[in-house]
Amino acid sequence: MSITPLEFARGNAEVYRNQLFELLRIPSISTMPEHNDDVRRAAEWLMANMKQLGMQTAELLPNDGHPAVYGEWLGAGPDAPTILVYGHYDVQPAVLADGWSNPPFEPVIRNGVIYARGASDDKGQMFTHLKALEAFLATEGHAPVNVKYLIEGEEEIGSPNLGSLLSTHKARLVADVCVISDTGMAAMDNPAITYALRGLAYMELHVTGPKRDLHSGLGGPVHNPALALSQIIAQLHNADGSVAVPGFYDDVLPLDADERAALREIELDAAAFIRETGIPAVWGEPGYTLIERQTARPTLEINGLLSGFTGAGSKTVLPAKAMAKISCRLVANQDPERIYQQVRAFVQQITPPTVRTELRYLNGGTPALVDRNLPAMQAAISAFERGWGAAPSFRRSGGTIPVVADFARELNIPSILMGFGLESDGAHGPDEHLSVEMFHRGIATSICFMEALAEKGR
Amino acid sequence: MSITPLEFARGNAEVYRNQLFELLRIPSISTMPEHNDDVRRAAEWLMANMKQLGMQTAELLPNDGHPAVYGEWLGAGPDAPTILVYGHYDVQPAVLADGWSNPPFEPVIRNGVIYARGASDDKGQMFTHLKALEAFLATEGHAPVNVKYLIEGEEEIGSPNLGSLLSTHKARLVADVCVISDTGMAAMDNPAITYALRGLAYMELHVTGPKRDLHSGLGGPVHNPALALSQIIAQLHNADGSVAVPGFYDDVLPLDADERAALREIELDAAAFIRETGIPAVWGEPGYTLIERQTARPTLEINGLLSGFTGAGSKTVLPAKAMAKISCRLVANQDPERIYQQVRAFVQQITPPTVRTELRYLNGGTPALVDRNLPAMQAAISAFERGWGAAPSFRRSGGTIPVVADFARELNIPSILMGFGLESDGAHGPDEHLSVEMFHRGIATSICFMEALAEKGR
Repeated sequence: MSITPLEFARGNAEVYRNQLFELLRIPSISTMPEHNDDVRRAAEWLMANMKQLGMQTAELLPNDGHPAVYGEWLGAGPDAPTILVYGHYDVQPAVLADGWSNPPFEPVIRNGVIYARGASDDKGQMFTHLKALEAFLATEGHAPVNVKYLIEGEEEIGSPNLGSLLSTHKARLVADVCVISDTGMAAMDNPAITYALRGLAYMELHVTGPKRDLHSGLGGPVHNPALALSQIIAQLHNADGSVAVPGFYDDVLPLDADERAALREIELDAAAFIRETGIPAVWGEPGYTLIERQTARPTLEINGLLSGFTGAGSKTVLPAKAMAKISCRLVANQDPERIYQQVRAFVQQITPPTVRTELRYLNGGTPALVDRNLPAMQAAISAFERGWGAAPSFRRSGGTIPVVADFARELNIPSILMGFGLESDGAHGPDEHLSVEMFHRGIATSICFMEALAEKGR
Repeated sequence: MSITPLEFARGNAEVYRNQLFELLRIPSISTMPEHNDDVRRAAEWLMANMKQLGMQTAELLPNDGHPAVYGEWLGAGPDAPTILVYGHYDVQPAVLADGWSNPPFEPVIRNGVIYARGASDDKGQMFTHLKALEAFLATEGHAPVNVKYLIEGEEEIGSPNLGSLLSTHKARLVADVCVISDTGMAAMDNPAITYALRGLAYMELHVTGPKRDLHSGLGGPVHNPALALSQIIAQLHNADGSVAVPGFYDDVLPLDADERAALREIELDAAAFIRETGIPAVWGEPGYTLIERQTARPTLEINGLLSGFTGAGSKTVLPAKAMAKISCRLVANQDPERIYQQVRAFVQQITPPTVRTELRYLNGGTPALVDRNLPAMQAAISAFERGWGAAPSFRRSGGTIPVVADFARELNIPSILMGFGLESDGAHGPDEHLSVEMFHRGIATSICFMEALAEKGR
C-alpha cells in the first residue's frame, strides 16, 4: 500500500522543521547593507533545497538588489493548471534588545511554537509550498499541477526590483494563478483567505534649523527643529483621528453595504484587542469599525522619530535637525506616489518660515483587491477544508503585499492569499513566532490546493 | 629687576597651554557612566596641578557622584579678602560623528583657536584662575588675596551633589565673593560681566501604547505613541511661540524699563544671528526682543526625540513607545520643581485616553540674578580694563550655572561671572573652541582681579 503525499508530509514533519530552522538561522535582513552576504546565503540555501527536493529548475534571478530564487516543476504537462507560488526569504531587522526572549536568529520551540525572526513572515509560510511539492514527488513521482516558485529577497524593503523582474521573465512566469502565504488568521480553527491588502507609501521627513547643534542656553530666538517636527506631525491628523492631508481620501473605493455587513461578522472584539495589544483604549477614524480601520481604511503612521540627544541622562542641546519615518497604509484605489505628493504638498504648506523641511519617498506598494468569485478561490476553500480541517472565511488584511498588484499588472493573473500564520504572530516585532502545528497544516493545505486546482481546472 | 605676575604668565603661555591640553585630552563626560574613570582621572590631574603650583591644600571632596576638587592658598592672611573660584572639569558628550573637524578629545590649534570638547566650557576658562595664582606664587611668593578653588565634576548633569557639598564644607568654603568663569562675551574686544543666568528644569516624557512594537499593517485602531508624543509636544507652545503650559510665566520677575533699555543696547543683530546659526528666520515669544528671548525670558525646548525605527531604510513598525527630552530654561524667580509640576499637570491634562504618559524630572537649576552695584563688581570692571584691555559691559546669559543660586543660598556670597569665552565658542556642540589669546587674557584678568579686590576691599 503506497503512502499518500499528506501521509508523507506528516511523517517528515521533523525533517521539514529542521530544514526551516536552517533557513531561520540566516539573518537575511534586506534593509541592512551589512547583512547583504546573509541575504545571499539565504537565497543559495533555498536554491539548494529546491534542487534537492526534485525541481527541474532552481536558480537565482539577479537584479539590481538582492536576487530572487526561481524554481519550477512542469511535469504535469501543458493541459494541467500552473501555479506560481510567490514568497520572500528576506526578513525585518531584529536584535535581542528589542525585547526578544531568545536571540531572533537562533530559532527555538517553546510550547509548540517556533520563535524566530521570519518564522511567520515569511520563511515559515513560504516554505510549506516547497514541502508540498516535495511530498508529491517523493511519493507519486509527480504532482497534479505544474508549479513555479518565485521567492524574492526584497519584500521587506518594498520589492523595488520585482516589477522589472516580472517584466523581464514574463514569458517564463506564465501561470494560471498566483498563490501567496504571507498573511494571518485570527485563530487556528478559523483560517482565512485574504482578498484585499493595503498598500504603502513610506517616507522620511527631515526638519532642519541651525546649521549645527546649539547649546540650549542660546534658545529663545530659535525654532527648535524637534519642536517644529512635532508641530508638523501633529497637523497631519484631525482631532478626530482622521488624516488631515488634503485629498488623502479622494481615491478610496468606498465599502459597499454587503462588504460592510461581512466585515461586521468578523469585527474585532475591542476588549480582546486591548488585552492583546496592551493599549489603554482603541483609537482611530470615526464612522468606521475597528476591523474597517485596520483593513479597509488608509492610515498615516509614525514609524520612527529621531532628534538630538537620546541617551541616558541629560544634554542641554538645541538640535540642528529632527527626522520622522512616516508611512501611509493605503486601500484601493489609492496610489502611493500620489499620496506622497499630497503629503509633501501639505508639509510644504504647513512648514513655518523658521525651519526647513524635506519629505523623501523611500518606497511603496499598490493596494490590492482580488475577486472573491474565482474558481481558484473555490479550490482554496476546498484545500482549507481538507488540508487544514476548517472552512476559511474571507478577510481583508491591513498589511501590504505589493506584489499582488504587480502580478495583476505584469502577468494578468489573480493572487490567492492563503495565509498559514496567526495575526498575533508578532511579524516585524520581537518574539515573532509560528505554531509548529500550523506549519504542518500549511503543508497539507498546499498539497490539497494542488489537488483541488487540478480537479476544478483553471 | 623682578618680573611681575602678568609678565610671568605671558612668558609661560606655552607651558600653560600644554597643561590645558593634557586636561582636555581626558574625556570627563559626567553623564555617561562608561566615562566614570575618565572623570576621576581629570579630577586627579587637577589636584596634582594644584599641588604643583603651590597651593597649601589640594584634595578631592568625595560625594555620591563624581568628586569635586578643592584647593586653597590662604597666605594673604585673615585681613585680606578671600575669593572662592568655582568651575567645573566635567564636559558634555562629544563624538567625531557629531560634526567635529577633529576628534573632540584630541585638542588642536587652528588659526589661533583651540578646538576640543571643554576648551571653553569649562576647562579652559576655569584653568585661568589656577594659573593666575601660580603667577603670583612663582614671582612674589604670595598673592594679594586668599584664594579657594572648588572645581566640580557634575556641572553638566545639573550638579546634583553640589548643594550638599556646599552645606557639608560650609565652614571651610567661607569667602567674600565667588568668581566664576563659565560664560561668554559677544566679541573679544567687548568683554562682559554676567549678572543674570537662566535656570533649568530638565525632564523626560515617555509615551507608551501597545505593550510591544506592532506591525504597522495592524494600524488603524491604535493610537501611535510617536504620533501621540508629537501631538502632546505640539500643545506645549501656543501658535505665537509662547509656552502654553498654564502658570508657566506666573513667577517671572518682569524686566523694568531701565533694564530693557540696557538690553536694547546689546540687542542681537537678527541678520548676523541668522547668518551665524544658519536658521532661515528668527522665532520666539512675541513682545520681546531677541536678546530678551534668549536671556531674560524662559523657554521650553525639545532636546531629544526617540521612537521606533531610526536606521537607514524602512521598517513598517508601529512603535510601542516614544520618548522626548524636554527642558525649560528659567528666569528669576521661577522654580525648577514648580515648573516640572506645572508641565506634568498639563501633560496629564492633555494626554488622550488612548496612550499612557509619564513625565520624569531629571535635574534642574535655580535661575540667578546678581546685584550690579557690589564693590566686587567694581573690582571686576577694573580687572577687565587692565588685564583684558577693554571695559566690560553687563549682560544676562541664557545658560544656566545653578551653583550661583547655591552659593547665594548656602554661603550667602555673591558670584561675579567674568566669562573668558565667546558666545560663539560652540559649547555643547561640535567644534567647541576657545581662542588662545582669550585664554591668556583670562589669566591676566584673573591676576588683575586679585589685585583690584585687595585694593578695593571686600
